[in-house]
Amino acid sequence: MIDLVLIGAGTGHPDHLTLQGVRALQEADLVLIPRKGAGKEDLAHLRLAMLARHRPDGAVVEVDLPVRDSEIPYLQGVESWHDAIAQAWAQAVDLPQGGTVAMLVWGDPSLYDSSLRIAARLDWRARVIPGITAIQALCAAHVIPLNSLGNEVLITTGRRLREGGWPQGCDRAVVMLDGACAFQTLAPEGLSIWWGAYLGMVEERLESGPLAEAGPRIVTLRAEARAAHGWIMDCYLLARNGAH
Amino acid sequence: MIDLVLIGAGTGHPDHLTLQGVRALQEADLVLIPRKGAGKEDLAHLRLAMLARHRPDGAVVEVDLPVRDSEIPYLQGVESWHDAIAQAWAQAVDLPQGGTVAMLVWGDPSLYDSSLRIAARLDWRARVIPGITAIQALCAAHVIPLNSLGNEVLITTGRRLREGGWPQGCDRAVVMLDGACAFQTLAPEGLSIWWGAYLGMVEERLESGPLAEAGPRIVTLRAEARAAHGWIMDCYLLARNGAH
Ligand SMILES: C[S@@+](CC[C@H](N)C(=O)[O-])C[C@H]1O[C@@H](n2cnc3c(N)ncnc32)[C@H](O)[C@@H]1O
Ligand SMILES: C[S@@+](CC[C@H](N)C(=O)[O-])C[C@H]1O[C@@H](n2cnc3c(N)ncnc32)[C@H](O)[C@@H]1O
Repeated sequence: MIDLVLIGAGTGHPDHLTLQGVRALQEADLVLIPRKGAGKEDLAHLRLAMLARHRPDGAVVEVDLPVRDSEIPYLQGVESWHDAIAQAWAQAVDLPQGGTVAMLVWGDPSLYDSSLRIAARLDWRARVIPGITAIQALCAAHVIPLNSLGNEVLITTGRRLREGGWPQGCDRAVVMLDGACAFQTLAPEGLSIWWGAYLGMVEERLESGPLAEAGPRIVTLRAEARAAHGWIMDCYLLARNGAH
Repeated sequence: MIDLVLIGAGTGHPDHLTLQGVRALQEADLVLIPRKGAGKEDLAHLRLAMLARHRPDGAVVEVDLPVRDSEIPYLQGVESWHDAIAQAWAQAVDLPQGGTVAMLVWGDPSLYDSSLRIAARLDWRARVIPGITAIQALCAAHVIPLNSLGNEVLITTGRRLREGGWPQGCDRAVVMLDGACAFQTLAPEGLSIWWGAYLGMVEERLESGPLAEAGPRIVTLRAEARAAHGWIMDCYLLARNGAH
């Protein structure tokens, strides 16, 4: 029997790792490091640096992840891609007597991450060690609360914001997985934005202000940063003014 | 000049603390521990245990927090209560040359927490070290994703759920700050619930299932646990079935 421990690794700062995460890394029989292939923003080097520090004795296996077939319809493509990843994990783990396999998952394993869905395809027992999400890293970097006093917050994606517009009834929304600055599709009046890229990393960039003014600055900054680094990870909080 | 570092301490497991949090505790000139008074669920003992482990040399000041005046209107009451807390913090800190004051904040300082709003009343410079929230602790304990594939999640409160009903357009909602099982006010058909109390602590209790069946079990379990411990902290994820 294989026990899989998905460890939330935080969003790029090596010290986002929790004490619980350190312990799980040290206790695992094997640590699995997924690699997306050359030039990809898989940030495997950050995971390897965490291991070098907390688990210097090795027992690490790197797994080359299969590539998603972009020719077939999205949801169906994701399903067979997840099947293939599960197979790659299983092939990489050589523990005939069973044992504990750890994986460092970006941010927290519960948030916009497929590791749990992939693990469910295997005959393994999964556990989760919670980690710092990009949402906490964003608010910490800007030194702001996520919610206005006693009110809701919507966690959403660039695609959903573009399709659905401003979420009815909410005064705040965090937007993740946005490759194209979906905030540009909103009427900016009365909205503020707090944006962050490479949160927790040395490359960290922040911008904020009324959406009408900060929005165009962010579009430029994002394009420049992306060109400079070859990749970007960013997210933002939008708030209706007047909420406090 | 006083630098205030608000450190996300996680939701009760001593190893929820991040390496960044440990370092900030060790580097602070003074650690402030708020106490709500006898019999209150301030969990000051958990914070003191973290300090005994990571900062055994002391430099800790406990602050008795003022009590909120429940005679005056809620929002106005909160404002003057926050003023009084800010004053209590300032009085407890005796650093005439300036320095760094650390506070351990429950969960993450950005989520349904007033520390940042209180700090804004003082002439201090605030920083935040992100921490594990009850939302991550809930999903980790149940070994479930927070969102369904690519979809939104609403973070809300018991009061808002009771007043507003099921949030339009969302297939998932996390409910916090719910003293009265607000899920009972929803038509349970087609909804599932994952509930957790004392998440991360030895007292941890979990329950889940279709809301129609699990709901009544949670109401009973919650009342029993609350009676047994004298206090409770719980939250839950609600999902519309069919979402995956
Ligand atoms: C596939 S999701 C994974 C989220 C992760 N599980 C978490 O808990 O934050 C990736 C998205 O998270 C956000 N993100 C992750 N790390 C980030 C970082 N260091 N800075 C800014 N945004 C980040 C971006 O919106 C990105 O598109
Ligand atoms: C004032 S809010 C603070 C939230 C905290 N800042 C966080 O990041 O989780 C308190 C609410 O958080 C939730 N909560 C906090 N700790 C919890 C725990 N250990 N187990 C279950 N719920 C918890 C409950 O819904 C509780 O009413």
